[in-house]
Amino acid sequence: MSGPDPSAAPSIAAPSTADSATVDPERLARATLSLVAEPGDARILGLTRRLGAQEFLDLLVHHPDLRPELGAAAGRLAQVEPLPVLEAARRRGIRFVIPGDAEWPTRLDDLADTGVLQDRGEVPVGLWVRGPLRLDRLAEAVAIVGSRSATTYGEHVAAGIAADLARAGRPVVSGGAFGIDHAAHRGALSADGPTLAVLACGVDRAYPAAHRAMLEHLAEHHALVSEAPPGASPFRIRFLARNRVIAALTGGTVVVEAALRSGALNTANWAERLHRPVMGTPGALTSAASQGVHQLIRRGAATLVTGGDDVLELVSEAGHHVVAEPRAPLDARDGLSVRARQVLDALPVAAPAPVESVARVAGLAPEEVATLLDGLAGVDLAERTPAGWRLRPSALG
Amino acid sequence: MSGPDPSAAPSIAAPSTADSATVDPERLARATLSLVAEPGDARILGLTRRLGAQEFLDLLVHHPDLRPELGAAAGRLAQVEPLPVLEAARRRGIRFVIPGDAEWPTRLDDLADTGVLQDRGEVPVGLWVRGPLRLDRLAEAVAIVGSRSATTYGEHVAAGIAADLARAGRPVVSGGAFGIDHAAHRGALSADGPTLAVLACGVDRAYPAAHRAMLEHLAEHHALVSEAPPGASPFRIRFLARNRVIAALTGGTVVVEAALRSGALNTANWAERLHRPVMGTPGALTSAASQGVHQLIRRGAATLVTGGDDVLELVSEAGHHVVAEPRAPLDARDGLSVRARQVLDALPVAAPAPVESVARVAGLAPEEVATLLDGLAGVDLAERTPAGWRLRPSALG
Repeated sequence: MSGPDPSAAPSIAAPSTADSATVDPERLARATLSLVAEPGDARILGLTRRLGAQEFLDLLVHHPDLRPELGAAAGRLAQVEPLPVLEAARRRGIRFVIPGDAEWPTRLDDLADTGVLQDRGEVPVGLWVRGPLRLDRLAEAVAIVGSRSATTYGEHVAAGIAADLARAGRPVVSGGAFGIDHAAHRGALSADGPTLAVLACGVDRAYPAAHRAMLEHLAEHHALVSEAPPGASPFRIRFLARNRVIAALTGGTVVVEAALRSGALNTANWAERLHRPVMGTPGALTSAASQGVHQLIRRGAATLVTGGDDVLELVSEAGHHVVAEPRAPLDARDGLSVRARQVLDALPVAAPAPVESVARVAGLAPEEVATLLDGLAGVDLAERTPAGWRLRPSALG
Repeated sequence: MSGPDPSAAPSIAAPSTADSATVDPERLARATLSLVAEPGDARILGLTRRLGAQEFLDLLVHHPDLRPELGAAAGRLAQVEPLPVLEAARRRGIRFVIPGDAEWPTRLDDLADTGVLQDRGEVPVGLWVRGPLRLDRLAEAVAIVGSRSATTYGEHVAAGIAADLARAGRPVVSGGAFGIDHAAHRGALSADGPTLAVLACGVDRAYPAAHRAMLEHLAEHHALVSEAPPGASPFRIRFLARNRVIAALTGGTVVVEAALRSGALNTANWAERLHRPVMGTPGALTSAASQGVHQLIRRGAATLVTGGDDVLELVSEAGHHVVAEPRAPLDARDGLSVRARQVLDALPVAAPAPVESVARVAGLAPEEVATLLDGLAGVDLAERTPAGWRLRPSALG
């Protein structure tokens, strides 16, 4: 098709209506691009970043045939009305945050020139945000993602980690789906922590519908975020675009249950590509819901974490939140002297032995061993029988 | 005390009885040391290795006071009768395998100068073996160890890996305990594979007594091995010494369930120190029986394995037994053309959309999209409704 008459093209980059006086041209240009381009369209987003939004939009308006792959977006320009969309959004408490805004989460800029995964990539032209949580407060945020069809175990683990993060003052970021996403928000809320859902549809929509109440709660007290404009439907491709936003917004991604084809693995791949810590929680080998996570850990793409403490250590600066190696609870053995422990180790575990043979194995004098055995019996580690001494079964370790 | 008259010391290193003619002096010297020294006594074993068994024994006989820490072993020399022990062992089908024998598993020599763990270390003076399986046939052996108080899940995993190894022609090595040890032998036997138990007591003893039938079966068809001589009781310290033999005999150690204080972690530490692959199977975070394994994986000391194939890859030479990354089963999506997949990704997951909007999101012509949608409906990936098209829920992925 031939290019339309430039004069006939809607004057989007510099609208002349009265309303536009309150909207700066950069925001208006980016809102326009958000309306005509699919989230994560790496060609359009990359050109926007390199040329500047207004210049690229100008190019699209006046040279719609410059590149065939831009034709669809150019063709939509005439159909969109960015100013009314921005105004309607504002009335519904939805703001459009763009690069350069104080609220812009600069971590997203790491998506520049990072390539594509599943045909999605690059820095969004902006994010539509609904809720009081500011995006520039996400410096310490951690993503918790996983299977929609999670097990009760997985939901328990996700909620526990989210609560630990919340107690440590870390915002939680996830999607809005059933399963792990829901459990992560629930866990953060249970500990009164901030939690944010990044959606594949517009932030004014409730998908899945069953999560309407939770999503409304997040919109009122925390935030819903989307790269897609208000009203946008949840297309599959938008989930793929959305996953990179979750990974890029946060300092690390925890995968709790993901089957082999789970979208959560796409988020993990983005976190890995962005050099952010990828973490995974193990589960039973018999659980298909953990297979994808085990694969990540096995190939070294994710670090095994056992709870919030492990996560905090990995997403914190070196030296902060160092996790003490888990230890078995202290028992009587820990309080023993070196020589008492020598005697303990020299005790038979089955048939009892006389003091002399215990002394021989321990390499100590029988008199000393006899005294130490009395002490060990006193703390229930050794047992005296008619045939001699032996280890108490409970002390076998 | 002053040194005894050398002429009064028992002439162990070169016995003059008629029976000794059939036993070479090196074997006799090592049998003597096996009778007077505790398994894994690093001082005695290290001196034996550096001086030679006969020379060290001669030193012990003639200079019992040379080092105080050797006094106990020297003092026992007069009480042991190595020749009758060897002869009684032979009659019971027990052989004493020493360095230099064709059957000696040279992997054990890696224990030389590798330090001590829990006060045990060094190359054994010899191994007492009962059963037809030759120790020089263990080049491909893999250790499977774990908790005595294993869960049903852990036993299932251990038996499964052992069976996989057995089917691949790999001998299994474990202890003789309840739980994982028992499951490992059971799994190997179920696949008609060789399996070997390294015991903390003499190979003529059944500990635990409940495993008598299994141990007798191993002795008849495979092998029981111990560093401790026949008749020796299972002292705790002998388990610690035994663990290093399991790690050193095998090309890698798999830990299936180990609580934080489990002896299996001691075996894993030995395998790590010997630069043999250490592998661990994950379990639920809620299971105390998996805590020790998760700790190993988390600190990078063990690689997560999900089954026998993973183990085979890690213990095999590079390029052998490469495991195909597990994939979700092929589904209809995998057979799609690039353009059909574009359409699939452009389908809404909730409210249906008309062909035109699907075409717009996909960036394709509506006519082509209409045709592709019919095809996608035919393979149950897309769904036509009165209001338009959407993804079949089962295709959400």
